Amino acid sequence: MTLINAEVAPEQERLNWGRLLMDGIPYADLTAALERGEDVSWFDHWMKTAADYEKEAQRAVDAGHRHTAGELFVTASLCAQYAQYLWFGEDRAAGQQRKVDLYLKAAPYLDPPAVRFDLPIDDVSVPGYLRVPDGKGPWPCAVLIGGLESTKEESYRFEELLLARGVAIATFDGPGQGEMLAGTAACGDFERYTSRVVDFLIEDSRLDANRLAVVGRSAGGHYALRSASLDSRFVACVSWGGYVNFENWEGRAPLAKESWRYVSKSANMDEARIFVEECLDVRPVLAELRVPTYFQQGALDFVPVSQVETLKKHAINADLTVVVEPAGDHCCHNLGPRPRLEMVDWVADQLRTGGSDQ
Amino acid sequence: MTLINAEVAPEQERLNWGRLLMDGIPYADLTAALERGEDVSWFDHWMKTAADYEKEAQRAVDAGHRHTAGELFVTASLCAQYAQYLWFGEDRAAGQQRKVDLYLKAAPYLDPPAVRFDLPIDDVSVPGYLRVPDGKGPWPCAVLIGGLESTKEESYRFEELLLARGVAIATFDGPGQGEMLAGTAACGDFERYTSRVVDFLIEDSRLDANRLAVVGRSAGGHYALRSASLDSRFVACVSWGGYVNFENWEGRAPLAKESWRYVSKSANMDEARIFVEECLDVRPVLAELRVPTYFQQGALDFVPVSQVETLKKHAINADLTVVVEPAGDHCCHNLGPRPRLEMVDWVADQLRTGGSDQ
Repeated sequence: MTLINAEVAPEQERLNWGRLLMDGIPYADLTAALERGEDVSWFDHWMKTAADYEKEAQRAVDAGHRHTAGELFVTASLCAQYAQYLWFGEDRAAGQQRKVDLYLKAAPYLDPPAVRFDLPIDDVSVPGYLRVPDGKGPWPCAVLIGGLESTKEESYRFEELLLARGVAIATFDGPGQGEMLAGTAACGDFERYTSRVVDFLIEDSRLDANRLAVVGRSAGGHYALRSASLDSRFVACVSWGGYVNFENWEGRAPLAKESWRYVSKSANMDEARIFVEECLDVRPVLAELRVPTYFQQGALDFVPVSQVETLKKHAINADLTVVVEPAGDHCCHNLGPRPRLEMVDWVADQLRTGGSDQ
Repeated sequence: MTLINAEVAPEQERLNWGRLLMDGIPYADLTAALERGEDVSWFDHWMKTAADYEKEAQRAVDAGHRHTAGELFVTASLCAQYAQYLWFGEDRAAGQQRKVDLYLKAAPYLDPPAVRFDLPIDDVSVPGYLRVPDGKGPWPCAVLIGGLESTKEESYRFEELLLARGVAIATFDGPGQGEMLAGTAACGDFERYTSRVVDFLIEDSRLDANRLAVVGRSAGGHYALRSASLDSRFVACVSWGGYVNFENWEGRAPLAKESWRYVSKSANMDEARIFVEECLDVRPVLAELRVPTYFQQGALDFVPVSQVETLKKHAINADLTVVVEPAGDHCCHNLGPRPRLEMVDWVADQLRTGGSDQ
């Protein structure tokens, strides 16, 4: 596999301020990344920052400061995530593994804790985490799906919003993502993996099997539409900056294209393009989507806003809530917390039978 | 009173990124403030942003989305806070009042709610908020003191950290701050007002009167030293970016100096300087400080790091924990969450008899 020289590619593509900040990277670390010496690579800088946070987190563990330990291990994991984010050097796998290890360290200190699962499928397994609120259940649950360059370790801040509203959360890596990438490339049947997670969740007596939602971000918003169309156990679906079918390949940034090649294990860019255009297309099954569905787009996104019309044309059996933010970029990361709050409130409303969120 | 033309003064002084972000202003709103049209004043821009958030918050109330309502009303209040922050136009009082009103709207939706109190003293009253965790008490409590240009409505994010660690919080406006400014200028006996709040707290059966801490930021870190020295009901003290005595007047930024003149109701800058140097000095009483005290400074602060030596010289009866962050600016706002986490863990440890924080 040919690796592009990421040092030459525009760092602006990695330094997606809205996304990194909203996911929980401290502003102080973004400025430090910008101001680092010219001889320090993006990857090395963030891996060092991750190690610094890990050290502080361990100190918190030793002092019995559980909350701080959880917070700092998560931050360390996020730093490793963004070290390997859109980074195609040989060291990417090491960054990916650090992210996994650091989140695993954070998991028991989160409130509620994140409990790891590994679910056999074919000859591999689907890795993920489940977080269930304390107290009397059974709880509704949202299954979160990341996108390109996303993994199960990245949604902590968003999870907190759902948990505060009484919704348990499950995250997992699907094909082409995180720990699954080595064994399973991105594919056109992502829903099989989502359904494997659902098989697991409905066996948990703390959860209400009749109140499951799927929430996907970016490409995960595409996978969410596919999963909710083909698994009738979901009662609600959110496509956050997602799409019905992949359009505008030419309009994608260089590292994003390289990433699609990487996660689909395509031999070259032409193959990658054919993959996304042919395999990331839920139009053939979208008439099967029969649950309330929230479709959020930013008008300034590289995902064409015409996807709203595509959705309406094909999702003829679903109750659609379409939100197009006029000033929003991809996933509306640039707009701060408000669009995310609206989304989680919608999810909580769908997973409840009337009333307020308390 | 002569008002300076704030439009001419450097906006950089207001746009303190670390502070605003850490206090809860979304990054998206900071960039919007930077990119606003030249014909829109700092004040008007932020007041408009506050109004936008208020509208969204009210929509959340109407939809029964309590968590979001609280979050957005707090954000609205913070925007009004920063509208009038270091702003000396005639409209400042209106911004101050909006901040108060918006936080009052947020209060019942916070978790736990913030409950307003107004405590008579002399011929005025001390306004504040108390937030007590749910569940079985009695809870330890931290009394938070803001600094110059700070008020009781501004510490929401910091409060969340203490509440998560099982510490109730009380905030209030003292002389020269927020709602008290109109009737009472900044003064040299701030501890009288802190003690008035303590009088109130010890009557609340949900709180443990033997586990009270005082935590002050910036000038509030000076007031905290004074309050803990002169009120023996505190068992711990945090001076966060504070000082024993006011030094380095010449090194302060122009708007900060103007603000000292404003809150002390001095006729001119000479009077203001005399006020801060003569009245903000706890050396004469610091031998009375007999409780564990956390003194945090940034080595890059305009508060001279020599204040550490001053503290050690005069606080001869206190168990001191001194933290000087080599890369920290004023209150270490530029360093992100880590220094704040260390501080709240220290407070929680002091207010507990051994064990971890859960």
